[in-house]
Amino acid sequence: MTDLSRPFCAAVDWGTSSFRLWLLDAEGAVVASSRSEEGMMHCANTGFAPVLEAHLAKVEAPAETPVMICGMAGARQGWLEAPYVEVPASLEALPTQSVRVADAKNDVRILPGISLNDPQAPNVMRGEETQLLGAVSESGNALVCMPGTHSKWVEIENGVVTRFSTFMTGELFSLLTKHGILQHAIEEKAVVSSDAAAFQSALERTEGQAHAVLSGFFGVRAAQLLGLESRGDGAAHLSGLLIGGEVSAARELFGMDDRVTLIASDPIKTLYATAMEKQGFQVVSKDAGEASRAGLFRSAKRIWSE
Amino acid sequence: MTDLSRPFCAAVDWGTSSFRLWLLDAEGAVVASSRSEEGMMHCANTGFAPVLEAHLAKVEAPAETPVMICGMAGARQGWLEAPYVEVPASLEALPTQSVRVADAKNDVRILPGISLNDPQAPNVMRGEETQLLGAVSESGNALVCMPGTHSKWVEIENGVVTRFSTFMTGELFSLLTKHGILQHAIEEKAVVSSDAAAFQSALERTEGQAHAVLSGFFGVRAAQLLGLESRGDGAAHLSGLLIGGEVSAARELFGMDDRVTLIASDPIKTLYATAMEKQGFQVVSKDAGEASRAGLFRSAKRIWSE
Repeated sequence: MTDLSRPFCAAVDWGTSSFRLWLLDAEGAVVASSRSEEGMMHCANTGFAPVLEAHLAKVEAPAETPVMICGMAGARQGWLEAPYVEVPASLEALPTQSVRVADAKNDVRILPGISLNDPQAPNVMRGEETQLLGAVSESGNALVCMPGTHSKWVEIENGVVTRFSTFMTGELFSLLTKHGILQHAIEEKAVVSSDAAAFQSALERTEGQAHAVLSGFFGVRAAQLLGLESRGDGAAHLSGLLIGGEVSAARELFGMDDRVTLIASDPIKTLYATAMEKQGFQVVSKDAGEASRAGLFRSAKRIWSE
Repeated sequence: MTDLSRPFCAAVDWGTSSFRLWLLDAEGAVVASSRSEEGMMHCANTGFAPVLEAHLAKVEAPAETPVMICGMAGARQGWLEAPYVEVPASLEALPTQSVRVADAKNDVRILPGISLNDPQAPNVMRGEETQLLGAVSESGNALVCMPGTHSKWVEIENGVVTRFSTFMTGELFSLLTKHGILQHAIEEKAVVSSDAAAFQSALERTEGQAHAVLSGFFGVRAAQLLGLESRGDGAAHLSGLLIGGEVSAARELFGMDDRVTLIASDPIKTLYATAMEKQGFQVVSKDAGEASRAGLFRSAKRIWSE
């Protein structure tokens, strides 16, 4: 009989600049958790094993607890490369393609990313595939959006990732507001509300017209020079352009599916849901952290329970 | 009789970060010229008058030489604000809407910019209107592209600017290669050739599909991670996406006109001409510097010869 009080595994989402560990029981419930900024970039200097061991100690994980990891720890410049699995890629089969860290004290596995080796649309993901595994049912069909610094849109057919796209939406927002001419038109640390007029208006202008993003950026500044908007509107205006343009472009790429699974966390979740609903999508929302944890747990079950 | 050996006027293109002066005779021929980095940003500290006087002295301009200026010297934060003229804006009438600097030693005029006060597509230009005046015939119809940090596309009907768009193409290229994740995928100071395979291929992917720019940025990095391209291809790949996307978006905005006037200087002129011809435009090229000078001369004639 399974001892439910004994942790079944540790699940780790190890990104570029963040580390997140959950100690899970045999049902996937969280026994303890720990997080820090010790992402791949940090560990390039300190090494990965000491960071993992410190977090395992912090949550008092028993000595033999196996560890399932997703994310940038599996990149070429990470702990141990977990080579990309090419599309078409079965989500269910991903755990069997994980790599095992030979010199770790515990049984440590790192999940692979997924690649699209098409010269016309080359793409990679690493970490998001685990969210998909946690959020999409085994044999499901879905169009999934995972917004962020590099937003992913993924087409899944019968549990198999068939193609995907990346939009550098979060990075563009950051670059344009920190380094370019628009920094004079956008307040630092502005919080964008989904019902802000400048956000809604930019969504309308990009609806069905992704090209309006490219000709719209400068308008954030021009609107203020002409007294049509104030600096307080800048962040909402730019967010609306970028998110509206991303949703319109994804429509062009993935067709007129009327249902999208949105794996995200607030505040960005609400902004994307607003843009998607405005364009006629029926949105099913899932929390990003929970999706990662569920995908890691599903992987651990596959490896250590069968 | 006009004394052709005597300078007729000084023509000044005074940008954000550059200053360029030509001493012109009554036919518009260049008697002498001078340039420096003393743009508006520099002059915010030093003042504008001393900079102009130093350059006039350098080219040995006679004491009474009148001066026609275009560009950021007429911005609100410049020397003296020359308020925007709203579209529809007659190019021929622009000189009559110039402002005169009251406290200058010479007769100094600053040409106005043009604005599009449409809340759906707010826009401004300052400096480019003078290139238009120099490059487009008095009663001409034209679709004009002036590429650069902030590319302008302008629709002209019977010598009147009816609408225009701005693409932050040059700024996006700079931001993406200097500050973002793509800096690892692009060589600094790379020179892009219009026949580079990565440039041509990106032009093809964005042809008629401006949205492919948004989903294509990340591919510059992914192509290298997957061994499909090398770092030496990065700049050409990104240039092709941005320029191809701009031309496609402009097609959407301004319709299927088959002729475009390209006011630019190399090396960017050849890249744009290549992208435009690939999309079926018949390109008429004009040099950007000559267009500015011709527009300033035409303005000077209008003010001081009639």
